[in-house]
Amino acid sequence: MIGKLNHVGVATPSIDESVAMYRDLLGATSITDKWVMPEQGVWVCFVNLPNSQIELIEPYGDKSPITAFLEKNPKGGQHHVCFEVEDIIEARDAMKAKGATVLGEPRIGAHGTPVIFVHPKNMGGVLVELMETPKGDHH
Amino acid sequence: MIGKLNHVGVATPSIDESVAMYRDLLGATSITDKWVMPEQGVWVCFVNLPNSQIELIEPYGDKSPITAFLEKNPKGGQHHVCFEVEDIIEARDAMKAKGATVLGEPRIGAHGTPVIFVHPKNMGGVLVELMETPKGDHH
Repeated sequence: MIGKLNHVGVATPSIDESVAMYRDLLGATSITDKWVMPEQGVWVCFVNLPNSQIELIEPYGDKSPITAFLEKNPKGGQHHVCFEVEDIIEARDAMKAKGATVLGEPRIGAHGTPVIFVHPKNMGGVLVELMETPKGDHH
Repeated sequence: MIGKLNHVGVATPSIDESVAMYRDLLGATSITDKWVMPEQGVWVCFVNLPNSQIELIEPYGDKSPITAFLEKNPKGGQHHVCFEVEDIIEARDAMKAKGATVLGEPRIGAHGTPVIFVHPKNMGGVLVELMETPKGDHH
């Protein structure tokens, strides 16, 4: 079912500082501007690599879902892994049929296509995002 | 400097159980056999995705470097991210010159090329592996 590893989600207390680190220390050359996703409670930007991306996420607002993660990991850290799937409804139904706990209903993610999250307890301790591959993306 | 996202390292108390999860729950179709890397203190196998890999690592021996991680995260979890670099010595020297803490000397990693690890305190809380791109890999 799963296709490409779309991105690794990395929580950070400061996207600006993380962008500087990826640019100046690791030498990443393609990094998007940040933008707010109010409904998700995060600022987001992407570090583009030749085959995949690092998604940097910083809390936005009082009810950000990554606030607790950053309290446990004040410097930030790996928050989730996102795999592409062809059809998010099929993927959700397959996950549920196999007994996995899907967190919430499909919603539009940072790439403009629907995503779901699967509970880490079913995924070897990893918070897994499943994201519908953007139409027209034939890579 | 950094090139492709070679893999996400995921620690697990049981590679066999994790393989079953990636195969049966997530539908991964290409997963290598596991093998031991005694000097690294891990069992390892790879879940192959179209553009990248998940590296599953399970402790091997009494002094495995991932034992402490699994004590904190008994179900397993995201352990490191591996980026490719063209030249591991140049990468190591660049990291040191910029003040990052490189853990140990270059050694041969799971893909047969030299790797180093950079301390999470310099990498936004993420343990970063830098791996020399295999020669002849022109992807």
